[in-house]
Amino acid sequence: MKSFYQDLIRKNSTKIVLVILDGLGGLPRFPGGKTELEQAHTPNLDELAERSSLGLTVPLAPGVTVGSGPGHLAIFGYDPLENAIGRGALEALGVDFALRPDDIAARGNFCTLDKDGTILDRRAGRLASEKSARLVERLREIEIPGVEFFVELVKEHRFAFVMRKAGLGAKLSSSDPLITGVPPLAVRALDDDSKQAAELVNAFIARARQVLEDEQPANGIMLRGFALTPVIPSFKERFGVNAAAIAVNGMYRGVARLAGMQVLDVNGISLADEFTTLEAAWDAFDFFYLHFKKTDTCGEAGDFDGKVRAIEEFDLLLPRLLALNPDVVVIGGDHSSPAVMKSHSWHPVPLLLYAANCRSDGRREFGERACAAGSLGAIPAMQVMPLAMAHADRFEKFGA
Amino acid sequence: MKSFYQDLIRKNSTKIVLVILDGLGGLPRFPGGKTELEQAHTPNLDELAERSSLGLTVPLAPGVTVGSGPGHLAIFGYDPLENAIGRGALEALGVDFALRPDDIAARGNFCTLDKDGTILDRRAGRLASEKSARLVERLREIEIPGVEFFVELVKEHRFAFVMRKAGLGAKLSSSDPLITGVPPLAVRALDDDSKQAAELVNAFIARARQVLEDEQPANGIMLRGFALTPVIPSFKERFGVNAAAIAVNGMYRGVARLAGMQVLDVNGISLADEFTTLEAAWDAFDFFYLHFKKTDTCGEAGDFDGKVRAIEEFDLLLPRLLALNPDVVVIGGDHSSPAVMKSHSWHPVPLLLYAANCRSDGRREFGERACAAGSLGAIPAMQVMPLAMAHADRFEKFGA
Repeated sequence: MKSFYQDLIRKNSTKIVLVILDGLGGLPRFPGGKTELEQAHTPNLDELAERSSLGLTVPLAPGVTVGSGPGHLAIFGYDPLENAIGRGALEALGVDFALRPDDIAARGNFCTLDKDGTILDRRAGRLASEKSARLVERLREIEIPGVEFFVELVKEHRFAFVMRKAGLGAKLSSSDPLITGVPPLAVRALDDDSKQAAELVNAFIARARQVLEDEQPANGIMLRGFALTPVIPSFKERFGVNAAAIAVNGMYRGVARLAGMQVLDVNGISLADEFTTLEAAWDAFDFFYLHFKKTDTCGEAGDFDGKVRAIEEFDLLLPRLLALNPDVVVIGGDHSSPAVMKSHSWHPVPLLLYAANCRSDGRREFGERACAAGSLGAIPAMQVMPLAMAHADRFEKFGA
Repeated sequence: MKSFYQDLIRKNSTKIVLVILDGLGGLPRFPGGKTELEQAHTPNLDELAERSSLGLTVPLAPGVTVGSGPGHLAIFGYDPLENAIGRGALEALGVDFALRPDDIAARGNFCTLDKDGTILDRRAGRLASEKSARLVERLREIEIPGVEFFVELVKEHRFAFVMRKAGLGAKLSSSDPLITGVPPLAVRALDDDSKQAAELVNAFIARARQVLEDEQPANGIMLRGFALTPVIPSFKERFGVNAAAIAVNGMYRGVARLAGMQVLDVNGISLADEFTTLEAAWDAFDFFYLHFKKTDTCGEAGDFDGKVRAIEEFDLLLPRLLALNPDVVVIGGDHSSPAVMKSHSWHPVPLLLYAANCRSDGRREFGERACAAGSLGAIPAMQVMPLAMAHADRFEKFGA
């Protein structure tokens, strides 16, 4: 859906950097204690905070814990409820597959069947990725005229399945009965538009059975979470910027690609490598999304100290970003991942917005409490991009 | 569109004063410095702030810089997106013309044409207002049966043009080609309903050419920004109050008139004169909108100190308002106009709401930072009037 903001876009050469520290928001280890971000020694962030506006973002709605997909869509300025990314599409994005509009994606897994086709093990003994890589090659041999199939290994028994043919519906039931001792289910069309897709998927599954017949333990496949690739307005359309994405992990690269960003190659997997990519691409784009995964990984693992160190790792590199003289710097997260909860959470996420023309809070601190008292307030994450655009002088005045 | 609040209106004799310090919000001259409002010496505002609730208003949407039209509509409680005021209508309102529903207004200007009708100067050398005043009189001689025309001088080469005839469409193209060396464009109907209006406008322009034939340098006219007068629910309908507007500048008087307020005559042009008008009318109304332009004028001119002095000028007069014992006092702005930006901006606008029953913040200070920490939070400007109504005990309880 077109955003009201699109009519206000003004051309400019200002540069915006949006840093997502994944799962940034946290909780203290004990009541009254410090959160991961408050605990971290962050002299560079603190100095920047003093010249910035602080606030909190609510990813989707109060009390709602989001996954990384909707969390990112929201801070990219898209309504996650209008632009749902199905599980199948996420799986494909997660292995860096370049989904196209009309592609139908699903989560696939190898399973073990007995000679009658009854499921003995839904995960084929979680076979090693090296073994499943070879099986994925076998699945790629399957051809059905008029349709293209793509199979990409995720890991162990899991793979991403993509079917490409224009005009298919994707309201399809799962073939996984979720129990053993019965055969896999036939995939059913859940609406009339999806009947052809169901036939094609079932044909693929039948062919897979033939192709894998002599394999052990993985002699069958199951598919679930079918989803059409969501078509969302590009960042260029919505904000008039040439956007680049710098991320190492597939899913984040994929969501950025969905939003029409150019996903840059990172030579390496460290945050420093991402900064090197940023520096090299600086002149070629006017918007940069830079993603740091480690904060979330540690949060989900319950590693409080690791998350503190991850934040400090970012803080040490921050001067390299500031040396590029960006016009607007936004530092936030897609959701909270408090280490004490070992999971994503609904808690609002710290937000820092720096620009020469921002109304700075003058508080030399970046943390949950400082942000809760910040002048931006607790705002829906979808408002972050409009604010960044305004501070970058990229919106016209509305009305006279 | 009817507001949900209208069903809650309760009759009462309480009085509400809404003071708009135009372009009130500001920015410091240097990071960490004071804004215009923070810099101003405002003992009376500070004393009132201590007994008031503070907050910030977001005129239309985060990141959006608004013009005075939508900025005022929002703080008057109307959705500026639903009630757009076209440029032509604003021009007519700006010269205090009493637009009626169905009126079509446009921005007009005199131009210089050669003998073949080619534009030599789109602004007729920006001729002096004294000269164009006489030409406006000539245009007023034009008569076409079945339709009324009004022409009002704005200044120099600019005038407001109004056409009055029931049922005309107003989707009309501009006659200004925006370049010289070509003739003015014929005005075209952009939809079927506007065909008659296009014919009438083109007939008027042709007659103007004849009437001005012997004039130099202004021997032609161009019209643009055609707009039907927006019809918005009156303040009486929406809030059940008898509303009076006290403003010196035409546009603000015009927007208030659109909202069905009675626009009072001010004997003079100073803020003190406006206060005298307020005192004289005190018993006759139960809602007063009082507008002060100088804060915005200085902001847009980049005159930081001038804006500080304008705020101090208001502060000195504030006791005269308080001496009237209003039940609710709201002091805010239609948008920010930071002197350092020399323009309107998107930054949220300081808001003070005083009433005996308000939940006062107890902070003896009225400024951007105090307001950012205020108990009202950062709220859409459209919520100001409902809050004022509640504090004036003018809403019934919803539900039992």
